[in-house]
Amino acid sequence: MEELLIVTTGGTIDKVYFDDKSDYQVGEPQIGRILEELGVAFRFRVIPILRKDSLHITDADRELVRATVAAQPTRHVLVTHGTDSMVQTAQALAPVAGKTIVLTGALNPARFRGSDAEFNIGTAVGAVQSLGAGVYIAMNGRIWDPARVRKNVAANRFEADAG
Amino acid sequence: MEELLIVTTGGTIDKVYFDDKSDYQVGEPQIGRILEELGVAFRFRVIPILRKDSLHITDADRELVRATVAAQPTRHVLVTHGTDSMVQTAQALAPVAGKTIVLTGALNPARFRGSDAEFNIGTAVGAVQSLGAGVYIAMNGRIWDPARVRKNVAANRFEADAG
Amino acid sequence: MEELLIVTTGGTIDKVYFDDKSDYQVGEPQIGRILEELGVAFRFRVIPILRKDSLHITDADRELVRATVAAQPTRHVLVTHGTDSMVQTAQALAPVAGKTIVLTGALNPARFRGSDAEFNIGTAVGAVQSLGAGVYIAMNGRIWDPARVRKNVAANRFEADAG
Amino acid sequence: MEELLIVTTGGTIDKVYFDDKSDYQVGEPQIGRILEELGVAFRFRVIPILRKDSLHITDADRELVRATVAAQPTRHVLVTHGTDSMVQTAQALAPVAGKTIVLTGALNPARFRGSDAEFNIGTAVGAVQSLGAGVYIAMNGRIWDPARVRKNVAANRFEADAG
Repeated sequence: MEELLIVTTGGTIDKVYFDDKSDYQVGEPQIGRILEELGVAFRFRVIPILRKDSLHITDADRELVRATVAAQPTRHVLVTHGTDSMVQTAQALAPVAGKTIVLTGALNPARFRGSDAEFNIGTAVGAVQSLGAGVYIAMNGRIWDPARVRKNVAANRFEADAG
Repeated sequence: MEELLIVTTGGTIDKVYFDDKSDYQVGEPQIGRILEELGVAFRFRVIPILRKDSLHITDADRELVRATVAAQPTRHVLVTHGTDSMVQTAQALAPVAGKTIVLTGALNPARFRGSDAEFNIGTAVGAVQSLGAGVYIAMNGRIWDPARVRKNVAANRFEADAG
Repeated sequence: MEELLIVTTGGTIDKVYFDDKSDYQVGEPQIGRILEELGVAFRFRVIPILRKDSLHITDADRELVRATVAAQPTRHVLVTHGTDSMVQTAQALAPVAGKTIVLTGALNPARFRGSDAEFNIGTAVGAVQSLGAGVYIAMNGRIWDPARVRKNVAANRFEADAG
Repeated sequence: MEELLIVTTGGTIDKVYFDDKSDYQVGEPQIGRILEELGVAFRFRVIPILRKDSLHITDADRELVRATVAAQPTRHVLVTHGTDSMVQTAQALAPVAGKTIVLTGALNPARFRGSDAEFNIGTAVGAVQSLGAGVYIAMNGRIWDPARVRKNVAANRFEADAG
């Protein structure tokens, strides 16, 4: 893996807490800071294309993500995304050819103690350089085919979708 | 200090994140777990009397807190509270005689990396056993007289109130 | 990935600090606790076979690790190991056929803030279910061929070995 | 409290881990960084006078700490120190008149998850501005008289010394 393209769209992974508003909001993408602090042995470039809760991501947004990924020559792509509509965005990326694309995110904000963010980014990074061309989801320690996975909202985890 | 009475009312310090609701909410009081993990050398008892954002604390709630504190024989009292109306609750506790009462809370949830919760609890614990009877606020590393402090909401910190 | 076999051998990832001895020592394996807290969607089994600094791992120890891995029917194997001799152990595992084996560890103890442990475990977990049979090293965000990587001790990172 | 003078001497609180040496060492003082990140509402100045395990602190070192504290006009003083000989250094500071001096440290390095460092610093900060002139120890959530406390090494905590 010469270089990793990282496209960020917002989601829980980037949520921060604003005490003056007694509210969380999607903040700056966390992944660049995390990878720098970890000292990873690959080059990466972050394109912060959206900053949304994934419930608010529209079909137009998905087309924007698809076009952004397609326009870059990089072969290995990681997309950070809210979990609620991650599967739909993964499916919208299916037409992109010749690239290995892995979507990931977090069930708890990266800024939280015990967040799954660093582990999930690790899973995605391990998968993106090991798999052939295609679109994948890395959540809960598994690499999922977007056609066969769903988020179980009540249990707050990804699981196989019997379909 | 034989024993510390801890009254919890909610606030940012206890906020947790619920991904299935894409929302933060005031959760279980964190202070008991924190003090246990730290292995403190004093007995403490936690009374979880309210679980509210401090913007929603009413005068009736304040009267409840006052009556709860007054009803206990314990001399040393720590109250965890949201920051937005901590000063008002401190002033409502002024009539309680013969006790050292310190209010504290956090600008970032205790569950966040880099939260001020543990430090603030420490400041309150250090002050409550060192001061005479009265009501005090422990925030931003200072022990404040409730009559001469305010929360600067824009700057997200407590500061002297020229008053 | 039906099930992941995890063999632990010690190393920095499991180091804890003992104040009464003013010393770090290799403690209980951390990986099982980490994966449980993260709520991973796969079964795993931990075999804690050694608890050593990797500088003290002998050829007999490596043979023990090899025999342990070979004796289990599980196809996907993760080995946690100290970083100083991780490459040698990876090479000693080369004769094991029909399994995907990924070694990982940490440059900072898992118990440290900012440790690379969770990220590295994530990278290994992402790779182990994505790669074919063989032995690999997951460190610094890369999946390395054990024949072409070395630990740069002075810089404290893994890098390609021109070899 | 106009200003807080902080004198650092090393100890577990400042221990960091060096993977290339498979060893911990007393590193840079952590307290300045911690107080800055917390955004405390008082001025402070750090004098890093020693960087030692407290088992290696000599009487000459204690005299240096005493002279350093005495030479500064600041009334409020916090000393960070290793826990094994904190009581002796506190006793050596007894001759300093007209100042409130609180010693604290940590049983686990500040860089560890779950360290008591931030809480202990908070306890010391709360006490130093609440107490009259004298020398005190802030550990395990208690403010101790140096003449009546000891470190129980086996249990790894401070406790009352029946004397």
